Amino acid sequence: MRFFSDNAAPACPEVLAALAVANVQDTAYDGDALSQSLDARFSELFGTDVAVLWLPTGTAANSLALASLCPPYGGVVCHREAHIQADEAGAPEFFTHGAKLLLAEGAGAKLGADAIRAALDPIKPGVHWVQPHAISITNVTEYGLAYSPQETAAIGALARERGLGFHVDGARFANAVAHLGCSPADLTWRAGVDALSFGFIKNGGMGAEALLFFRRDLADAARVRRKRAGHLQSKGRFLAAQLLAMLTDDLWLRNARAANAGAMLVGQAAAARLAHPVESNAVFLRVTSSEAAALRAQGFEFYDWAPGVVRLVVSWDQDETSVRPLADAVAALGARA
Amino acid sequence: MRFFSDNAAPACPEVLAALAVANVQDTAYDGDALSQSLDARFSELFGTDVAVLWLPTGTAANSLALASLCPPYGGVVCHREAHIQADEAGAPEFFTHGAKLLLAEGAGAKLGADAIRAALDPIKPGVHWVQPHAISITNVTEYGLAYSPQETAAIGALARERGLGFHVDGARFANAVAHLGCSPADLTWRAGVDALSFGFIKNGGMGAEALLFFRRDLADAARVRRKRAGHLQSKGRFLAAQLLAMLTDDLWLRNARAANAGAMLVGQAAAARLAHPVESNAVFLRVTSSEAAALRAQGFEFYDWAPGVVRLVVSWDQDETSVRPLADAVAALGARA
Amino acid sequence: MRFFSDNAAPACPEVLAALAVANVQDTAYDGDALSQSLDARFSELFGTDVAVLWLPTGTAANSLALASLCPPYGGVVCHREAHIQADEAGAPEFFTHGAKLLLAEGAGAKLGADAIRAALDPIKPGVHWVQPHAISITNVTEYGLAYSPQETAAIGALARERGLGFHVDGARFANAVAHLGCSPADLTWRAGVDALSFGFIKNGGMGAEALLFFRRDLADAARVRRKRAGHLQSKGRFLAAQLLAMLTDDLWLRNARAANAGAMLVGQAAAARLAHPVESNAVFLRVTSSEAAALRAQGFEFYDWAPGVVRLVVSWDQDETSVRPLADAVAALGARA
Amino acid sequence: MRFFSDNAAPACPEVLAALAVANVQDTAYDGDALSQSLDARFSELFGTDVAVLWLPTGTAANSLALASLCPPYGGVVCHREAHIQADEAGAPEFFTHGAKLLLAEGAGAKLGADAIRAALDPIKPGVHWVQPHAISITNVTEYGLAYSPQETAAIGALARERGLGFHVDGARFANAVAHLGCSPADLTWRAGVDALSFGFIKNGGMGAEALLFFRRDLADAARVRRKRAGHLQSKGRFLAAQLLAMLTDDLWLRNARAANAGAMLVGQAAAARLAHPVESNAVFLRVTSSEAAALRAQGFEFYDWAPGVVRLVVSWDQDETSVRPLADAVAALGARA
Repeated sequence: MRFFSDNAAPACPEVLAALAVANVQDTAYDGDALSQSLDARFSELFGTDVAVLWLPTGTAANSLALASLCPPYGGVVCHREAHIQADEAGAPEFFTHGAKLLLAEGAGAKLGADAIRAALDPIKPGVHWVQPHAISITNVTEYGLAYSPQETAAIGALARERGLGFHVDGARFANAVAHLGCSPADLTWRAGVDALSFGFIKNGGMGAEALLFFRRDLADAARVRRKRAGHLQSKGRFLAAQLLAMLTDDLWLRNARAANAGAMLVGQAAAARLAHPVESNAVFLRVTSSEAAALRAQGFEFYDWAPGVVRLVVSWDQDETSVRPLADAVAALGARA
Repeated sequence: MRFFSDNAAPACPEVLAALAVANVQDTAYDGDALSQSLDARFSELFGTDVAVLWLPTGTAANSLALASLCPPYGGVVCHREAHIQADEAGAPEFFTHGAKLLLAEGAGAKLGADAIRAALDPIKPGVHWVQPHAISITNVTEYGLAYSPQETAAIGALARERGLGFHVDGARFANAVAHLGCSPADLTWRAGVDALSFGFIKNGGMGAEALLFFRRDLADAARVRRKRAGHLQSKGRFLAAQLLAMLTDDLWLRNARAANAGAMLVGQAAAARLAHPVESNAVFLRVTSSEAAALRAQGFEFYDWAPGVVRLVVSWDQDETSVRPLADAVAALGARA
Repeated sequence: MRFFSDNAAPACPEVLAALAVANVQDTAYDGDALSQSLDARFSELFGTDVAVLWLPTGTAANSLALASLCPPYGGVVCHREAHIQADEAGAPEFFTHGAKLLLAEGAGAKLGADAIRAALDPIKPGVHWVQPHAISITNVTEYGLAYSPQETAAIGALARERGLGFHVDGARFANAVAHLGCSPADLTWRAGVDALSFGFIKNGGMGAEALLFFRRDLADAARVRRKRAGHLQSKGRFLAAQLLAMLTDDLWLRNARAANAGAMLVGQAAAARLAHPVESNAVFLRVTSSEAAALRAQGFEFYDWAPGVVRLVVSWDQDETSVRPLADAVAALGARA
Repeated sequence: MRFFSDNAAPACPEVLAALAVANVQDTAYDGDALSQSLDARFSELFGTDVAVLWLPTGTAANSLALASLCPPYGGVVCHREAHIQADEAGAPEFFTHGAKLLLAEGAGAKLGADAIRAALDPIKPGVHWVQPHAISITNVTEYGLAYSPQETAAIGALARERGLGFHVDGARFANAVAHLGCSPADLTWRAGVDALSFGFIKNGGMGAEALLFFRRDLADAARVRRKRAGHLQSKGRFLAAQLLAMLTDDLWLRNARAANAGAMLVGQAAAARLAHPVESNAVFLRVTSSEAAALRAQGFEFYDWAPGVVRLVVSWDQDETSVRPLADAVAALGARA
C-alpha cells in the first residue's frame, strides 16, 4: 500500500494507448503533427496564446524556465524549501549558468507577496550584489498547499512592479486546479505568470511534462536551450502524445481530483494531526515514531518528512478502496500523540 | 517511402510491449528493478564490468560523456564533421562548461590515429592554449563508415600514450557491430575506449539511449551530472525497459543487420555512384539535381547532404520489400551522371 | 576623516617604489623573475611548500580557490554573511560553474565546527541534493572577528573527516595574524587549510592579492583557470613586485598592526557600545541615527552596517593622530544610547 | 635586444607618474573621480557617446565584449587564427558560458566580408546548429595587418544586415590608427562596431585596457559581469589613471607611431623577405633556421612563428637607435634564402 510518492505511480492506460497510436513514422524532433498541435491545444485550455515545450522531467522544465527569465548573473527569489532550491541538485544553477536562488520564508513552503518583498528589499542596487530577475513559486507547494488566484495575482503584481519574471513550478498544478476549482488561466497568465512547468508525470503520465510560456518571445530561445541541454528527443511525438492524452476529456483534471479526494479522506480521518491543511493529494501527519512504525507494520509505505511528521501521498490510480484502509488506520491512532 | 533518416522510425513492437510490462509501481528514478539490472545485463554483453546510465537522447549521452572526460578548461579532439561539433547546438560546450572541441580531418568523417596526432601535435603546452583531455570518434561515422577494432585500438593506444580519455559516439554503434561482425568488446574497452554512447533510438527504440562507462570511477559523478541536467526521469523504469527489450534475443543486432542489409541492397544497385562505401544503414549517392528530383517524384524521401550528394538511410523496419523499389530506382538512373 | 573602508586606502610608498624597480623588460605573464620568486618567498613565510598565484582582487582569489576545491555540481559551506555569499555578485558561482553555497550560521559571521556540522548533517547522500565538497571561512570575519589557530584547526579536522576542501578568505588575514600574534602557518596548513586568499590590497597594496595553495596538486589547474578568467596579466611582474614589497621587512604585518591599533583605540573609547569585540581593524558600534549624524557632522565617514550599527574601519596609514579624534568623538557620545 | 613581443615592454614614465598622482584616497571600485571621467574622455576621442570599462587584460576585455554580444547558446564568427580562438585558453567560452567560435579564413588572419559570409551562409537555421550572434575581428590582425575604415565598414554592414553584433579586438588598435592615419571613429562606430577592446598595455601601459561600448545599452550588464569575473578592482583609480595618462597629449598615438616606425625600418631592410606587409609594429620575415640562428647569435630575440617564418615586434620604447642594428642585421642576410 504505497503512499510514498506519486512520482513513480503507473502511467494511465490512456497514456500508454496514445504511445501505440503515435508509433508511426512522422517528422523527427518536434516537427511531427502531435508536437505541432500542442500550442493550439494548450492555448485552448488556457484561453490565451501559449507556447509549449515538452520535456521529460520537471527539473528540466523548471530549470529551462528559470534560464529563460534570469541571466547568469541574476537571481531568482524562491522559498527556502522550494524544489528548485532543495531537491534539484543544482539544476537551476546549471541551466542558468550560475544564477543565484534568493531565499524567502513562509509556512508550508508558501510565499506571500510580503515574504517576497522582505527578501527583495534588503538587496542593494549595484554590481556587488546579485540583483533579482525573477520569482518562482510552487503551486501546490512542497507541502501540498494551493496558491489561490488572488494570492498568485498579488505575487504577479509585485513581479510586474519590480520588473521581475514570474515562474510557477506546477509539478502538481493539476492538483491545485482541482482543489481550487478555478480555471488554469486564473492561476497563471491572468495572475501575471510568465512561465509554467505543468506537471503530468506524477498525475498519470509516463515521461512528459509541459513547459508553457505565456510570453511567446521567450519560447524561441528556450527551444534552443532545450536542444543544447540534450532534451530535444528525436521521437518527440511520443512525448506530445502523452500530453495530448492527458488533456483529452480532462484526464489531467479527473486524475488530480481522484488523488485529491483520497488525500482528503485521509486528512479527515486525522484532522487533529494535520501539520498542514490538505489542499491537494498529500497529507502531512504528526505521528510519533511508534505510531509510524505501527502504520508501516500494517503495510503502509510513506516518507519520513521531518522529526514527528510523515508525508502520505495519494496517486491518481488509488481510489477510495485503496485509500480507505489508510484512513481507517490513521483514525485508529486516535487523538494527537 | 522514407529514407530520410532512421531517427524518426517507429519503435519496435518489443519495445512498446516492454513499456506495458514496466507499467507497475516501482521505486522512482533509477532505483527500480529494471534500471538496477542494467549494469549486469550490459556487463554480460560487453564481457566486462560496465556502469550504465539511461538517457533520452544521444546528445545528452555524448555531452555527459565528454563532461566526464574533460574539465571546463580542456579540449576534446573530434572530427570537423562529428555530430558533437556540427549537429548538437553546442550541447558539449553546455555540459562541459565551455570545453573546446579541437577539430581534426579525415575522409568520410573518419579519424585515423595520424589525423588525431596531427591535431594534437601543434598544441603547445602552457596555460595560453586549450590542452587536450579527450578524443571522441563516431562509430559508425556521420557518413556511415565503420571503425574496425584495429582502427579503434590504434586511437585507444594514442589516447593512453597522451593521457587522454576516449569516447565513442555510437549513435549507430549497433550498425558498426553488425557490419564488422566483431564483438562489442572489440570496439570498446578492448580498444581502450572509456565511454560509449550506445544508441538504441534510431535502431527501434523509443526514447532511451545507454551511456556506458568502462571506467566505473567515472560513473558516480556522471550520475550526479545527469540529475543536474534534468535527465533523471522519475519513472526511469520505462527507459530501462526499452534498453532491456533491445538487448533481449539480440534485438539490437537483428535490427541493425536488417537496416544494414537494406542499405547494402541499394549500394549494390549503384556502386559507381557511391560517395562512400556502404558500411552501415546509410547510402551516400552522387546524383544530379534532376536525378534527385526524379527519385523524389517516385515518392522516395531523402536528405540533400551536399551539392551533388544525397543521403539515403534504411531503418530497422524496412525489409527487402520496402527497399527493393529504391534499389531499382537507383539502378535505373544508370551509370554516373 | 575616512573610516568608511580600508579598500580604497592609498598604496604604501614601498609598493609604489617597487613598481618603479619592476619597470624593466622581463618575461611576460608570470615568467618573470619576480613572479617566479613568489613560491619561495611565501614558502619561507609559511614554513612549508606553497604555490602562489597573484590576482588583482580578493573576489578573483576566492572564486578561483573555490573552483579548485569544488566541482560545478558540488557545494561549499560558508557563513550566510560571508563575503563570497553576500558581496561578490555571484563570482563563486561563475568560477565554479554553478556550485552552490551552503549556508551556515554563527554570530559575527564566524563559524564554529559545530555550526558547520549543523549545515552538513541534514544533507542526505544521493544525486538529488548538492553534496558538500569544501568549507570556506573568512579570517578575520566580515565583522572583524579572528579565528584562532585552535578554532581553525577544529574546522580543518572536520573538513578532513568529511573529505572536504578547506579555504580561508583572508582579505584581512594580516589583521588576524597581527591580532592573534600567531604564525601564518598556525592559521593555515597546520590547521588543515588547503587554500588561502591572502589579501594585501586593503593593507597597503595597490592591485595584487595572493592565492596560496598548500596542496601543490591544486595549483596547476588553478593557473589554467586564471588565464581562462582573463586574470593572467602580461606584465605580471608588477603584481609580483607589490607582493614582494609587502613581504619585505614584514611590511604586511606592520601595516596590519597599525590599523588594528587604531581600531583598538576607538574600541576602548566606546567599549559599552561595541556590537562585536575588536579583533582587527574594524569597529562595529551601536549608535542611534542622531548619534551617527553627529559623528558625520564632525567629518567622520563610515558605513551604516545595519539599523543601529555602524562600521568604522581604520586603514594601515591612519596613525594615532588620525584616529584619536574619532576615539574622542565616540567617547563623547557617552554611555549606550 | 628584445623583439620578442611588445607585451612585456616597460610601462611609460607618464603611466608610472600617473599612479603616484592617483595615490590618494578616493571612492572604491569605479566610483572614483578618475574612473568616472573615462566615459567623457573617451567620448571626446571617439566623437560619440562611449561607455568605458577598465580591465587588466585584453583577454578579459575581449571575453567580456563577446559575452555582451552573444548568448551562451550562440556563436561568434572570427578568424581561425584570431587571438580569441587561438591564444586565450578558452576565456571566450568561459565568459560566454560556452558560446561557440565559428571559424572563417583569410590571409594574414584578416577577414573580408566575403570570408565572413562564407562562414555564415552554410549555417542552417534551426535549433540543431549554433546560430551566429556576433562577428569579431582583430585590428591590427595577429599578423600586424590593418583593416581600413572601408574594410571595417563592409563587415559592419554585413553585421547589421544579419543582425549580428560586431566586436573589434584592438590589442594593437593604436598601431592601426597610427598606420592608417584615420580617426578612431572611422575604425569603430562609424563602421558599425559595437564594442572595442582598446589595448594600452602593449603600447606603454602597465595593467589597464579599455573596453568600449558604442551601444550604451550593453554597458550596464557588462559592468555586472566584470564584477562577477573578479575584475572590479577596489582601487580602480589606478587603472583609470593609466588610461588617462595614455590619452593625454595623444601619448597612445605617439607610442604607436614610434613602434610602427621601427617596424617599418626593419621591413624596408628586408622587403623581399616579408611574409606580410608591415602595417603596424610587427615584422614577419621569411628566414631559414640558420639565418634565424645567426640573428640570435647577434643578440636579437624574437619569436619562431611558423616553419621558416619569424616574428619581430618593435615596442613603443625602441627608437631608431634600438632598431637600426636589427634592420642592418636583417639587410645583411641578403636576398631571399
